[in-house]
Parts: sequence; C-alpha cells; structure tokens
Amino acid sequence: MSNKWVYLFKEGNAGMKALLGGKGANLAEMTNIGLPVPQGFTVTTEACTEYYNQNQKLSKEITDEIDKSLEILEAQCEKQFGNKENPLLVSVRSGAKFSMPGMMDTILNLGLNDETVAGIAKFTNNERFAFDSYRRFIQMFGDVVQEIHKDKFDKVLEDAKTKNGYKDDTQLTTDDLKEVVVAYKKIIKDETGEDFPMDPKDQLLMAIEAVFRSWNNNRAISYRNMNDIPHDIGTAVNVQSMVYGNMGDDSGTGVAFTRNPATGENKLFGEFLINAQGEDVVAGIRTPKNIDELKDIMPEIYKQFHDIAKLLENHYKDMQDIEFTIEKGKLYMLQTRTGKRTAAAALCAAVDMENEGLITKEEAILRLDPLSLDQLLHPTFEAAALKAAELLATGLPASPGAATGKVYFTAESVCTAVANGEETLLVRKETSPEDIEGMYAANGILTARGGMTSHAAVVARGMGKCCVAGCESIKVDEAARQFTVNGQVFKEGDYISLNGSTGKVYKGSIKTVTPELSGHFGEIMAWADEFRTLNIRTNADTPKDASVAVRFGAEGIGLCRTEHMFFDEYRLPSVRRMILSESKEQRENALAEILPMQKEDFIGIYKAMEGRPVTVRLLDPPLHEFLPKEDKDIKALAKDLGITYEDMITVIQGLEEFNPMLGHRGCRLAITFPEIAEMQTRAIMEAAIEVKEKYGFDVVPEIMIPLVGIREEFTYLDKVVRDIAETVKTEKKSDIKYLVGTMIEIPRATLIADQIAETAEFFSFGTNDLTQMTYGFSRDDAGKFITDYKEKGILPNDPFQSIDVEGVGKLVEMAVKLGRQTKPHLKIGVCGEHGGDPNSIYFFHKAGLDYVSCSPFRVPIARLAAAQAALGK
Amino acid sequence: MSNKWVYLFKEGNAGMKALLGGKGANLAEMTNIGLPVPQGFTVTTEACTEYYNQNQKLSKEITDEIDKSLEILEAQCEKQFGNKENPLLVSVRSGAKFSMPGMMDTILNLGLNDETVAGIAKFTNNERFAFDSYRRFIQMFGDVVQEIHKDKFDKVLEDAKTKNGYKDDTQLTTDDLKEVVVAYKKIIKDETGEDFPMDPKDQLLMAIEAVFRSWNNNRAISYRNMNDIPHDIGTAVNVQSMVYGNMGDDSGTGVAFTRNPATGENKLFGEFLINAQGEDVVAGIRTPKNIDELKDIMPEIYKQFHDIAKLLENHYKDMQDIEFTIEKGKLYMLQTRTGKRTAAAALCAAVDMENEGLITKEEAILRLDPLSLDQLLHPTFEAAALKAAELLATGLPASPGAATGKVYFTAESVCTAVANGEETLLVRKETSPEDIEGMYAANGILTARGGMTSHAAVVARGMGKCCVAGCESIKVDEAARQFTVNGQVFKEGDYISLNGSTGKVYKGSIKTVTPELSGHFGEIMAWADEFRTLNIRTNADTPKDASVAVRFGAEGIGLCRTEHMFFDEYRLPSVRRMILSESKEQRENALAEILPMQKEDFIGIYKAMEGRPVTVRLLDPPLHEFLPKEDKDIKALAKDLGITYEDMITVIQGLEEFNPMLGHRGCRLAITFPEIAEMQTRAIMEAAIEVKEKYGFDVVPEIMIPLVGIREEFTYLDKVVRDIAETVKTEKKSDIKYLVGTMIEIPRATLIADQIAETAEFFSFGTNDLTQMTYGFSRDDAGKFITDYKEKGILPNDPFQSIDVEGVGKLVEMAVKLGRQTKPHLKIGVCGEHGGDPNSIYFFHKAGLDYVSCSPFRVPIARLAAAQAALGK
Repeated sequence: MSNKWVYLFKEGNAGMKALLGGKGANLAEMTNIGLPVPQGFTVTTEACTEYYNQNQKLSKEITDEIDKSLEILEAQCEKQFGNKENPLLVSVRSGAKFSMPGMMDTILNLGLNDETVAGIAKFTNNERFAFDSYRRFIQMFGDVVQEIHKDKFDKVLEDAKTKNGYKDDTQLTTDDLKEVVVAYKKIIKDETGEDFPMDPKDQLLMAIEAVFRSWNNNRAISYRNMNDIPHDIGTAVNVQSMVYGNMGDDSGTGVAFTRNPATGENKLFGEFLINAQGEDVVAGIRTPKNIDELKDIMPEIYKQFHDIAKLLENHYKDMQDIEFTIEKGKLYMLQTRTGKRTAAAALCAAVDMENEGLITKEEAILRLDPLSLDQLLHPTFEAAALKAAELLATGLPASPGAATGKVYFTAESVCTAVANGEETLLVRKETSPEDIEGMYAANGILTARGGMTSHAAVVARGMGKCCVAGCESIKVDEAARQFTVNGQVFKEGDYISLNGSTGKVYKGSIKTVTPELSGHFGEIMAWADEFRTLNIRTNADTPKDASVAVRFGAEGIGLCRTEHMFFDEYRLPSVRRMILSESKEQRENALAEILPMQKEDFIGIYKAMEGRPVTVRLLDPPLHEFLPKEDKDIKALAKDLGITYEDMITVIQGLEEFNPMLGHRGCRLAITFPEIAEMQTRAIMEAAIEVKEKYGFDVVPEIMIPLVGIREEFTYLDKVVRDIAETVKTEKKSDIKYLVGTMIEIPRATLIADQIAETAEFFSFGTNDLTQMTYGFSRDDAGKFITDYKEKGILPNDPFQSIDVEGVGKLVEMAVKLGRQTKPHLKIGVCGEHGGDPNSIYFFHKAGLDYVSCSPFRVPIARLAAAQAALGK
Repeated sequence: MSNKWVYLFKEGNAGMKALLGGKGANLAEMTNIGLPVPQGFTVTTEACTEYYNQNQKLSKEITDEIDKSLEILEAQCEKQFGNKENPLLVSVRSGAKFSMPGMMDTILNLGLNDETVAGIAKFTNNERFAFDSYRRFIQMFGDVVQEIHKDKFDKVLEDAKTKNGYKDDTQLTTDDLKEVVVAYKKIIKDETGEDFPMDPKDQLLMAIEAVFRSWNNNRAISYRNMNDIPHDIGTAVNVQSMVYGNMGDDSGTGVAFTRNPATGENKLFGEFLINAQGEDVVAGIRTPKNIDELKDIMPEIYKQFHDIAKLLENHYKDMQDIEFTIEKGKLYMLQTRTGKRTAAAALCAAVDMENEGLITKEEAILRLDPLSLDQLLHPTFEAAALKAAELLATGLPASPGAATGKVYFTAESVCTAVANGEETLLVRKETSPEDIEGMYAANGILTARGGMTSHAAVVARGMGKCCVAGCESIKVDEAARQFTVNGQVFKEGDYISLNGSTGKVYKGSIKTVTPELSGHFGEIMAWADEFRTLNIRTNADTPKDASVAVRFGAEGIGLCRTEHMFFDEYRLPSVRRMILSESKEQRENALAEILPMQKEDFIGIYKAMEGRPVTVRLLDPPLHEFLPKEDKDIKALAKDLGITYEDMITVIQGLEEFNPMLGHRGCRLAITFPEIAEMQTRAIMEAAIEVKEKYGFDVVPEIMIPLVGIREEFTYLDKVVRDIAETVKTEKKSDIKYLVGTMIEIPRATLIADQIAETAEFFSFGTNDLTQMTYGFSRDDAGKFITDYKEKGILPNDPFQSIDVEGVGKLVEMAVKLGRQTKPHLKIGVCGEHGGDPNSIYFFHKAGLDYVSCSPFRVPIARLAAAQAALGK
C-alpha cells in the first residue's frame, strides 16, 4: 500500500473529513479559500489506523512525511524548530471525523526548550510570559503525553506560592517560574527515568503518538459506544504554527457566531479580548467585550472579520462558530465549525436562510432536529431563576417541560389542592391508572420507580405534561405524606420544581416561562406538510387532548384508549359491579349504566375532531386493574356489593395474574365477555350518528380490536362488533360508515397478517407491546437490568424509545408485506410511542405505512420527521 | 356438471372413502372380493354437498338415481319395496370419510308400513317380531327423521306396560304392540300435521335427507372442530337390504376382531348370539358366547367366517373389526373396519404382522400412534379395582400414569411420610420450585390451579410422574391441611387416587399395575432407530433422570436445568446469601460455597450419561423464586443473615416483578452477575475433567446461555464463559473440548439468528417460552381464557402441547435458515416440551433440526415419531 500520511493545510478540503478529521478539513478549506490561517499540516486518520496495525509504532514512512511537512512549514513561517533566535512553536490537537470528547486535549507551544524559551522571550518581549508558557508546556506534556499525575506538578506550584506567600499564580515572578521549570523537569526525570525531551522533533512525535493512543482510552471508547461511532476509523492530528494574541494592544483573541445562537437573529454574535490568549477568555479573569465593540477599536480588523464570517457562512451554507486571533494587527482564523444553537435559533436561522436564498426548503427541513421542537412547545425555567436553584436529584427525563408546584402524594389531594387554586406536583412511588385524574390536575409528575415507558411516563407524554420518572434517590412515604432525598424531608405542600427534559428535580419554586410559537414555526410546519407523504394522527383519550392535537396539526386520532374512561370516579362503581358480575345478565345491567357515559365521551371527542377519522380501541387492560388495592377501598366495595370482605379478597385474588402483560386482557377479555365489546360498539356508533345529525360532522369511526394473535380471535370479534353496529344503524335509520380493524402488537399477528387482513379493514402497529414481546422485556421490570446493559454496551439504544429496526422492524415489514398481499390497499398505521420518534418515523415511512399516531405534543415533531423521511433521511 | 350420485356396492371399492364414506367403501370392497354382503347402494358425499348447494333439497337427478338403484336392488334381492307378500326392507346409515360420532344413527327396517308388516310377519313366521320391529321403526323415524322428542314415544310404551301391569318390554303381546303402533302414528300426525309416511320410497328419501341434515347438527360440527375435519366434505348414506339373525336356531349375529384387541394375540376374538339381532347383543339381556363356540354349533359357518376374517385382514393388511349375521344358515358380512386396539395390542400386532410378512417395517412404524406408547411406560389402575372407585373430580391430564396414596399438603410433610414408608400424593393449590423435593418423593401430584404447562405439569412430566393439574373443583386449604370437593372433606392422610392420563381423581386407594416392557417394544424401537435421522436427547436434571432416559434410548442430554440444583434444602441458604449479597465479593463467597455441590451434580450426571453429550443451561429463573414466601421462613432467613425482618421484606419486595416471565432472568441475570455464570462454568468444566480422568468418559459439555435476544448478550457471556473455561483447562492441564451455544426462545433471537450464529456453536429452541412470547400468552395465566377459546373454536389445539406451525413454526424455520446461512453445519436442536410431541417432531424433522430433546419418559415416543417423520409422516 502506498499512502499519503500527512497533508499540508493547502492540500486538503472540507470534503476530506474522514481522512483529515473535522477540524483539519475545515482548516484546509479555509486555507484554500484564501483566508488567513496559521499554517500547518494534518497527520491523517489512516496514519492512526496504521499506528495500531504496526503495534502502536509510527512507521518510518509516516515520520519521514512528518519531517518533510515540517520543513515546508518552517519555510512558510520563516521560522525553525529549535532555532534559538526565531523558533517555530506549534499546537498539536486531535481531530476525528465526528466531534469526540474524551480524546487528548490541545498541547500548546510545542517546540519550547531551554534554548528556544529565550527566543520567545525576545520575540514577545516578555520573559515572564515565555517562562510561564514553558512551565505550562512541560506540565501539559508531562500530563497528557507522559501520563504523569497532574497533582505532582500542582504541588510544585503550590509550594512555590506558599514559600513566597503568594495567593495567585499571577504573583509568581520570572525567577519563580524559572525555578518551577527546573522542578518540573526533575519530576519528568524521576517519573520516566529520562530527561524532558529537548529536541522539538522528539516532542512532536511523542505528542502525535499520544493523540493516537488517546483514541483508545476508556472515555473515548465509551463515548463511541454511546454514540454508535465505529471504533476503527481513527483520529487525525493537527499540527499548526502558534500565533499570539497577547503581544500588545494591537493583538487579541475572540470567538464569534455568524448568527445569534440563542435566537437565530442574523447578526454577528461573539466576544473578544485585547492583548490576551484564548485561555484568558476561558479563565474568566478579564471580562470579554462584545464583538460589536471591535468595530470601534480596530475598524479594519472588524470589517475583515465580518466579511470573513459572512463568507464562511455562505461557503458552508450554515451558521458558523469561529475562533480567531489578532497578532500584531494581523487577523488569523484558528477554527470554523457549524455553530451549536437552541431550537428556536435553529428554526429561525433555517427559515431566514431559505428566505435569503442561501438554502432550499428541503435543506431547511433536513437541517432541523425534530426532537428539538419539544423545547418550543413546553414551558422552560427562567434562566436566572434556575441558576439559584438547588438540585435535589436526577431521574429519567420522562416527559419534557418544566413545572413547579407544591408536592402532593395522592391523586385525591392533588385534585383538592388544585380546586383551591394551588399549583401542584404529584409525587408517587409509581402511578397506576387510578391516578389519572390527579395526573391531569397536577403541573407535573415525579415518580421514584419505573422507566421511560412506565405508566407515569407514557400517560404524562400523552398529556404533554412534565414528568420525571424512576428517580430512585427519593424515598417516597405515601402514608406519611412526605418524601426524603439526601436527608432532606419534603412534606405535603412543600415546593419543588421538575425539569422533564433533563430529569432534574430542584428544591423550591422556580419561575417557568411558557414559549410562544413564532411565525417561523408555522412556516416550517407548512413546508413539512408540502413534502411529507405520511399522515400524522394523534393518540388522544379526551376532547381536550384531541383539541390540542388538532391545533398542532393532527389529521385524525390513531388511538383513543377507552380504559381511561373507565377509571372516572363516578363510573368506577359501575365498572367494578360489571367485573364482579356472576352472570351475563348482571354484567349487562352494569354495562347499561356505563353506556350513556361512554357515549358522551365519544361525542366530545368526535366534536373536537370535527369529522377527522377517530380510531377507538376496545377495552384493553386486565380487569383486576380496575379493582381497589387498598384495604379500606376493598372494604367499601365489599359493602357496596353486599358481600363479605373475605369473599371480596378471594375474588380479587382470583383475578390476579403471574404475568398480567401476557394474561387475560385485550381481545381475550372481549372474547370471554363479548357484552363489553357490544356496549362499547353501541356507544361508538350511537355517538357518531348523533354527532353527524346534530353537528354535521361526518365521522367514520374505526373500531380497533387489540391484542389479536390468532385469525379466529379477529373473525369472532369482528362479527360481534358488526352485529351490534348494524343493529344500531337499523335502530337509528342511519347509513353511517365504520371500519373494523386490529392492533398488530403480538409477534404472532405479524406472522399471520395475511390471514388477519382477510377480514380486518385496517392495521395499527402497537409497537410498545410488540417490542416487549419480541425482546421478552417487561418495560415495568427492565429497569433492573437495562442500566447494566447500557454500561456494558449490550443495548446502545432503548428499543422502547426508538424502534429496533433489525428485530421488531423485521416483523413490522413482514406484517406490511403479508397484509398488503391479501389487501393491496390495506390502511396501515402505528400508534405505539414510536409514532412520535423521528428515527422510528424514518423507518415507518420506508416500511410503507400510511400514518403514524403520537401524543398531541409530538405531532409537530412527527410532521417534521415525516417530511425529512420523504426527503430521504 | 354431470355427476354420478349413487353407487351400487358392486360399483365401489375401498379407495373411494372420500366419495362413499368409510362404511360404504368397505361394503363395496367386500362385495367386490366376493364376500356375502347384503346388497345395497351408497348415496355419495357429493350428493350431500349438492343437497346443501340446492338449499337443502335433493335434486331430481339424485332422486332419479336413487330410484334406479332401488330397482336394481329389488331385482338382486328378488323382493320389492312396499310389496305385501315379499317386501324389501332396508337399513339406512350415515358414513363419512372419517369416523364421526354425532351424526344420525342407523334406521333399521325401513320399508315397513301397515301392509308390509304382514309380509314380514309371514316371512319371519313371527307376528310379534314384525309389529315390534314396526313400532321401533316408527319411533326411530319419528325421533331422528321428524325430530319428535323421544319422551312422547316412551310415554306410550310406559302407559301400555302400566295398564297391563308389565315390568319388561318383552311382556308386551302382539296385540299390545299393535295398539302401540296406532298410538305412535297418532303422535306423528299430531306433531307433524301429516300422516306417518306409508310409501317406503317417501320413507327412504326422508331418511336420506335426515342423514344429510345431521351432518350439520351441533354435535357433528363441534366434533369436526375438535378434530380438524373440514366442514365441506359431507357424508354419504348407505342403503342396505335387511337380513335377520333372529329367524331360528340356524340364524345368529356377532362381532369379531381378527386379533385380540387387548393383547394383539393373533387369534380370532369375538362374541355371537344364536337367534338374535345385533341390538340384542348390545341390550345385554342374553350373554353372548365366545366366537370359538361357533365352531361346535355351526362348524361350516365358523370355517367360512374364519376364512373370511383372515382374507379381510390379509386384504386390508390390518386387524379388522367385523360384524356379521347368519340368516337361515347363510352368513352375511355387515361391516368391516380397522379394529381399535390398546397400545400393547397395536405394538404386538404390528411386529407380528411384519414377521408374518403381511406388512413392512416401514408400515409397522407408520401404523403406531407414538403417544400411545405412554400407556406402556406408566402404571395403570387394575381394571377391576377401578370399576368400584368413586370419581371425585376431573382436572387436566397433565402427566400420564396412575397413582394412589395418602394426601399431604406440603413438600415437607410428603417427605416425612415417605421416610416413614407411606405412599403419598402431594396436593397443592399450585406448585412452585420449592416443592421439587416433595414432588420427587410423592407417587403423584394434584393441583387446583395451572394448565398443561404449569410448573407442576412440566416438572411432573420431566420426572415421569403422574400429575393431575388445574382441578378447579377441589378447594385446597393448605393451612388447614385439607381439601374439599363436592362437599366431601379430605384430610391429611386420607387416600385418593389419580389418573394422570385422563385427569380423573378418585376416592380411596385403587390398586395400580406396573407394565412390563415386551420384546415387541424393543423390536419397534430398534426398527425406529434404523429409519430416523433426528437424534433424540433428553431433558434431565439429575443422575436418576439421566439413567432412566439412557435406558429408554436417549443419545444425550439436550437440557440440563441447573436451577433445580439450587433448590436443594442444604444449598438454599448459600443461594439466598448469594442473592442478597450487597457486593461482588460477598456474592463470590456465597457462590464458592455452592461450587463444590454444583460440581458434584455434574459429575453424577456425566457418569450416568457415559460420555454422551450433555447440554447444561446456565441459571434461568428470576432470583426472587429462590427467596422464602411464608412469613416464618422470611423471619428465619432474616435471622440467619443478621438483618431485620423489615429490611428482609424490603429486599424481597425489591426483587418482585410485574411480569417475571419478561423480567430479570436468563442471560440477563448472568450479565448483571457474571460471577454466577463463572461459578457454573467452573463447575461444569471441573466436573468434566474429573469424570474424564477418573472414569474415562470423554464428556464434551455444551454450555447453553438462556434467553438471548440481542447479539451482544451472547458475545458478552460467551467471553465470560470461555475465559473461565480456558482458565480451568490451564489450571487442570486439560485439553478437554466444550461448546458454547444458546437457547433460541425470544422471538427477536429468531430474527437475528444470523448474527448470533457468528459466535454461538449451537442453537437449542426453547419452544415453551418462544410460544409464550409469540402468542403473548403467559402459560400460568392462560387458563382464564383458554377454555373460552376452545369452546368458541378460536384455538382448536393447545400451542403449548403441539407446535403452532404457522406462527411459532415460521420463526423456527427463519432461525434455522439464518443460523445456517452464517454457519452451514450449525448444530440445532429443540429442548422445549414440544420435543416429545409427535406432530411437533414431524415439523422439526422437516425444519432440518439435528435433534429433539424431551423428558425421559417421552424418549421412546420421540424415537418412534422421528422414524415416522423420516418415513414422510
């Protein structure tokens, strides 16, 4: 293999990121478009791979090329490595294809030694600076190249200060620093058995090898594991001649963004310091000035920089984050890269750049991170208020947004407090369907147990409500109405604050800000709608949720869960009587009490959806979820039903299951008790007919049968549903249309989808349950091992958040293929949590689905992601 | 369509069962090989289909053909329908392709009316017989053709007897019977508004239509549902001229088998009555004589019948069940069909017939029902003792065999009683792993809850021990040490008896018989081994089970579960300490206590297997299964561990799971606590090395990692296992071989089998869990709806008993294909319960598996089924 291992900046370009790393490629690009870049060269990522292939040795071929490049660099700078009068000093920095924290830091001023330090003193006219740079260089070299513990160097410095009675490093004199240099060199000798390398070339090769070694340190490996970056692509090393911003009032250094990274405003944004080096800005000893002031101090330089910034933005067609140094009145560009920005800024910049003709609509859409829209839709903490807040604990960021309020420990007490006008947060060990009302009423939810797809998390996301789940460091004592964290006790009525986007829990009340949706938001959404082919529906169980979703652009309801309606406190007695009925007749009587209420639910939802399609899922959870759990409630129910407490306990125990997830629920319930499905069908149909007659909305209800895995489960219930639907139509003399379809959420259903499609009129993937069963993971229990799985790199992504394409996805594709084999135009959607996840949406688009359905607050995210999918993402 | 709707007997043959039904085809065959068959004709199954196509009407084409066939029959018999002097009487019988209880019964003496009855009186010289036949004919016709309730006819007969003070029907005189006939005809008129049909042709067409209608009565439909018989194949109708065995001492009737149906002995076996009709044999008024006696009474007829029997057996190449009638010294054959037989008889006859040259080895093998071998391997009740026994209840036939003993309600009390020499049965609500020792000690197990694949059922089958599970009518009160059934209370020490093959529970002790295995058994097994290509392994966790399996022909262990070893009472304290360890070090100390015991287990098993391969599965169940459940045990453990009862409860609750089936178990345990897998690997390897050194058995342990669904789960643990295995090899200076493979039991594993096969050295399908997850059925909970599913025809077969080919089977095929895509010679087996089910074995053979593994008592069944599979079944 004949390879080129080293590239001068002028030999590369921005397209060579794989070979030169991101930093190196951008330095080359800037050099080639004629910008003033301190010259240098890049040792390639392939050299890194070769270094590992050669058993962690630099081959002669590579060192020869480095020597040759160095010679050219010396000529370009008119300086020389090791020259006492006019020494060349360089910085050495790592730079991989992907930005990668964890690797070796920058080494500055490489090339300094006992002789060249004098040259620098003379050149900078500052002996103290020269020796301070030298001792810093030795320390940094000792630490990152020779792996000597930093403490050893720090101790020398501390001793020097103590001896002289100094408080700050700045008090050290040139002579003090000279002594420190001597002591530092002794440390190197003691620790390595070798003298500190005086030959700059040795220093350089050692530094390059250290960068290569740092590619495989633990932090770098785990970062790559977490971010799905391959381990075999290696890092490049950038060697660049030093420039100095601290050479007088005609020098300086700064950082700027081409647009405002917080708002997106099209105006240069940044800071600078006169007579300073980059690290001074970071150290915070002096306060940097706003970039605008540079106009007054150095009008020429400002104009030059302003033009370069515009040029770079136009060149890269994106907002740039630029570092620069001014050395004796001359401007140098040290780095440019795509600028990080807030969601609002990203949105604003994308729309503006399209309007400016810089990018196309397609580029604007593809550039945005759909998930970041969440920041625009939910309240956030006021930045100033947040700074003062005390962090109590960190749980899982289960549902985004910020919330503040008094803590309450039961749904009941939350509701009472809210009725009294209080702001509340519901705090529980874990939530259950009985807590729904409290969850609705509270500003936010905090649980000690449960993962990202626990009941609390799923329901909160559905409501667009802030939730921190699985916060294991808080100990909740619901009986005592308090929780403890790190020894602090919080009682009912105490204030805390939650950030559902980060999982952080703070003490006290923190002011929140509700974002306003800008015109830019509407514009991006309109563009997304132009391109996307997937329809976007919402999961909504109440008229309120339905209205929110419609406002966000939902085109229908993909999942209306009916079980939440059963938990209403006024209905629960009838529901419980229904469950405990000993005969079909008793059960039908109880159901007759529920029917009018259930019908009212649907009327409200149909009205909110104004004629858009509504998919209603028949009752899904196991019946024992509706039974009381606490002793006093059990006693009350027994009394209500006129049976003994002991009999009540026997009944409840009889309904308990070993694995409720795989038990008597979904269509299995409806097969055992068809009268439940009959009542629900009647409510669905009567409501639709009434809404059509009274309000003129042409509702086509889509009745969805959950948990089907066997063809006959569907055909049996299809008949039950149709018989009642037709009866209602006849009774009401209506010719209303309706569809009967099924959830595809049992692995077996995907395997026999062709059979199910013979009768079913639509499919909707329930990817939550499908993921649980395909992996054999109970999402309620997976918390016990999922942490180990992540730490050990076994499961890089949570398959409940983003669809597992190669496993669960294979089943989805199979079901689509088999279903459409039977019915070529079968309507297919997805209503699991994945319906609101961008990566999953890209997959569902490719798989040929007609729509995705997600919680109301995810609708904008889904619209954008669907457009990106249509554009090939 | 031009069709032939009616076949004379002489026009058909035995190959025409689909068209003529089984009975009709055999009557035709006998006619054509020249046997004396009363002549007649068959209306085809296609005529039945046509009848339904024509909206339940017989087309003119069909009735014309019936008329024509009737004319020919009249000519053959020299009798005429409706002729006063010499009337033709016929029987009408249904006969479908498959023997099908539930359809219409026989109608005899069709053709009788007020006029022909006189002809019969004269012909039989018995007026009373003629009128008795007539009144029976009217009653039967009214009942089955005209659907008039039998009670109405019975009341007339009762009244006649009461009036005359008779006790028996036989006391009715000819005149009495004439009055009954008048009264019967009045019933018909009252009920139908029409006179009883006097025209024999009308009678015949009405009877044929009634047979066709009975094809779709409820009993017939549900029988077809249960037996997977299509609903659209219809039934044929056989119309046959009557012959009479009651025409004097030169007449008679009988039934005989060509061989002994209980033992298989090659000797005519049957009974006859002189001067009697078939129904007299059934009625039991006279005691039939042994067929041998016919030799003395009618030597000619006996010889003729004996020869015909031999001829029929040779012709059909199988044991025949023959009905015959002798009318005035002339022998008539009324029916022949394959004789039903006991398992022992089937085995004996198959081997004998092969030895006689009647059939080939292949035919002998294919003819046997593998499942019936169970009868030969397990104890049965002595027939006489069983007759006297009182049936208490019926549960599920969870594990075959018969058992009797005193009831005990805890594993402990069973063990104590057995130590005192008592015969015991363990009775529990349900069993758990803690009950293992009691299950081993008891003669049989009875549970009130749980299905065919509950813990009790699975473990009992593994042990080859009788078990009746899910017997819901018994109420077990473990605290009071008693159970109640139908108001009877059984206390500790009371005797009951269980039949695990039928699910029946009897009061008191019933003598059991242990079967001896005949030479025929060995011969069939040897033949099976010649043909089969599948290897047969066993699931065995103890040296005792392993020895039993080897005796039955097992070629290795396909599944050695290690968790049962953890439940031993002497080990449980160490196991519990291991589970409750707070550090890796504590856990390793506890594991070090378990290591030598675990190693002894493997030594015992390896020795029993004498060098055959042994697949050991690493620990699988969730850890909380090992923790105590009862308060006193919890207290004891807390004391043992030096922690408070409250802390103990907290720990136990912390380990509880919502869905343990989908929780922290299998390889997930080993990933969280690699030290468990390390200890087990060490025990497996050290034992193998020791057994090789001491006994010379060249064991190749196959270490199996359970519950893998993600590639990295396997690669991670593969490394853990190999590291220890290699360490042990180095320590012991051994070059022993071993394999590391995985269970395929998570749906996702089947989808990414190509990835897993990159590292895994073998696959073993765990079809129990694979079925649970593919269906989303928890087998512990499915009892709640599975009954409804069966009643409603949703699930004709239990997918836990016989593999679901179109769902779970698809995943199995996919995994085989993907796995072998990566490793063409990958060893693949199955170790779920399906490994012992013949239909599943046929599927696994086709799917290309290398072996099946089943419980020891299923090994012979699997050997036979595997041979049948190789022979194309």
